[in-house]
Amino acid sequence: MLDPWTADAFDYDKLVKQFGIKDFEDELNKIDNPHRLMRRKVIFGQRDFDKITNLINSNKPFAVVSGMMPSGQMHIGHKMVVDQLKWYQDHGAKLSLPIADMEAYAARGISFEKGKELAVNEYLTNYIALGLDLTKDDVDVYLQSQNQVLKDLSFRASLKTNFSEMKAIYGFTNSTNLAHVNSPLMQVADILIPQVEENGGPINTVVPVGIDQDPHLRLTRDIANKLHDELGFLVPSSTYHRFLTGLTGAKMSSSKPKTAIFLNDETKDAVKKLKSAKTGGRESLQEQKEKGGQPDQCVIFEVLLYHLMDDDKELEKVKEECLNGTLLCGDCKNRTRQLLSEFMDDLHIKQEEANEIAQTLFD
Amino acid sequence: MLDPWTADAFDYDKLVKQFGIKDFEDELNKIDNPHRLMRRKVIFGQRDFDKITNLINSNKPFAVVSGMMPSGQMHIGHKMVVDQLKWYQDHGAKLSLPIADMEAYAARGISFEKGKELAVNEYLTNYIALGLDLTKDDVDVYLQSQNQVLKDLSFRASLKTNFSEMKAIYGFTNSTNLAHVNSPLMQVADILIPQVEENGGPINTVVPVGIDQDPHLRLTRDIANKLHDELGFLVPSSTYHRFLTGLTGAKMSSSKPKTAIFLNDETKDAVKKLKSAKTGGRESLQEQKEKGGQPDQCVIFEVLLYHLMDDDKELEKVKEECLNGTLLCGDCKNRTRQLLSEFMDDLHIKQEEANEIAQTLFD
Repeated sequence: MLDPWTADAFDYDKLVKQFGIKDFEDELNKIDNPHRLMRRKVIFGQRDFDKITNLINSNKPFAVVSGMMPSGQMHIGHKMVVDQLKWYQDHGAKLSLPIADMEAYAARGISFEKGKELAVNEYLTNYIALGLDLTKDDVDVYLQSQNQVLKDLSFRASLKTNFSEMKAIYGFTNSTNLAHVNSPLMQVADILIPQVEENGGPINTVVPVGIDQDPHLRLTRDIANKLHDELGFLVPSSTYHRFLTGLTGAKMSSSKPKTAIFLNDETKDAVKKLKSAKTGGRESLQEQKEKGGQPDQCVIFEVLLYHLMDDDKELEKVKEECLNGTLLCGDCKNRTRQLLSEFMDDLHIKQEEANEIAQTLFD
Repeated sequence: MLDPWTADAFDYDKLVKQFGIKDFEDELNKIDNPHRLMRRKVIFGQRDFDKITNLINSNKPFAVVSGMMPSGQMHIGHKMVVDQLKWYQDHGAKLSLPIADMEAYAARGISFEKGKELAVNEYLTNYIALGLDLTKDDVDVYLQSQNQVLKDLSFRASLKTNFSEMKAIYGFTNSTNLAHVNSPLMQVADILIPQVEENGGPINTVVPVGIDQDPHLRLTRDIANKLHDELGFLVPSSTYHRFLTGLTGAKMSSSKPKTAIFLNDETKDAVKKLKSAKTGGRESLQEQKEKGGQPDQCVIFEVLLYHLMDDDKELEKVKEECLNGTLLCGDCKNRTRQLLSEFMDDLHIKQEEANEIAQTLFD
């Protein structure tokens, strides 16, 4: 059972086989200037992405949906989604960015007021600071609780599914509260809302998610099919990315501060967290020089790969020098800390202006 | 299983015992000038009605909730609810009148547009023509699909129940569509909405219903209790009325025109339907004169008792003369047809002006 509420470690290959997700590599070669996360196979899977590739390559309209749950602090793992959104925006996509305040309330008891505040000051501020333009006409940022078209669409969706399906997809039991049982219907509506008449009608849509969110895609695909005759909906495409490992080697989580660098961390605190991060280093200096390091088990290398080193050749060099034992963990960490320090300082400057813009988005 | 979607014949006494509904007679003596339907035990059961009696007798505020499902024509059986509402309005109640367009859509495929049109031209028009003042400030008529406070309240309610409870109360199965599973939550919200802060906060509420609607009351009572600490809700009171038998002796139903007199029937058609109605008459005139008629099995007598004869003494006289064989079915029917004819002519005149008012209610 793949369940978006208790996501943990994944056997990605098995998941791909079990749920019929296709390898992203099938599409990679057809894309001009693919994003770093695509090139580096952080984005490893897809459903129906060929439709999106064709639209990008022929300069035709498409939409991207990416929800945020306002329930804590944004960490560097979340940056990955924003980077993808920026890439899509640069490639002509309309963005639809739901704020899942109803889910945050149902699942975490966060009031709508608090949810909105978190969305503006934490999420939207960082989305803008990380380079997204949320003021464009073809960007739709909304609060679920305030969106009546969404609620109506969720109602339409609820006509097309039943408890059996929800149980099979999400593992709900008879004692799961009904708000929780219903919450995926809001996400289905989030994914389909770019296609409603009010928003211009059917349009190809891609949803970039972590593998734990695939249940929502499977449900949405089923319901989009069932609503095709009535509303003309096209089945959404999706991509699947791996998760950045937590700094301690465990899952990165907002609720475990030591595992994550938060985008609001002071630069000095962020850099300090890197210092104690788990690396792929050997027991002794001697051993490391002989056998080389293990970049595929190194959180530092992952942070470079996901976020801090955009040049493939430079990253390749780090990997080589690690593998052949010439680059030692201390030096590598120091350089990474320097890169992180620059990134954080720059982000903090951008956050100030970004927050002013974010404050106006719901006016 | 008592199920509001397939209501049929009821063993009222058994239902009262099984579900803990109390006899209405316990309250009857405490009420000044009880309504005809109370006096004549058409309203036979209640939950917590003592609270409402006390408020009426001490001239304190209370609310009445009564929903209408815009899915067909109003018939004379529906008049019973309006008569009760009028009595409550005359006794100082605030009225809250939801139009269940979302349920009509989920259960019968009636579009919101069509639902609104039916609500205005059929239901609200007749409500007004039958004597309700819907233009008063303390009357709240709303369409479920348009009421955001309602949807939020339904969401709050969904946090407090689960599929087990819905299954136990309504007999849903795993293959029931989720819109149907959720629809009682809208009714729970309908019943509790007079108590939200936006409407003035907690207030005692009575819901006059047919016994088939008791599942909604049981669910609402449970959820009101669970929401008490957060929202201060008071558990709603309710009353239960018997159903007027259909003219053919079967259940009166909008979908079976011969069973019902519709409020929009031409007077001549309405009167014609009465002519062939099932009576409690005997096989032969001789037998009837000897044994007397059976008013308790007579649809004509029921129509007089529920609707057309307000004077208890006059009704008592009809019963006596029927029982002792002096009033024969032909004469009795003729008089009833005369009364119905007067009622329908008068209603038709009132409907015209009422429709003009009804048209303005959603402006």
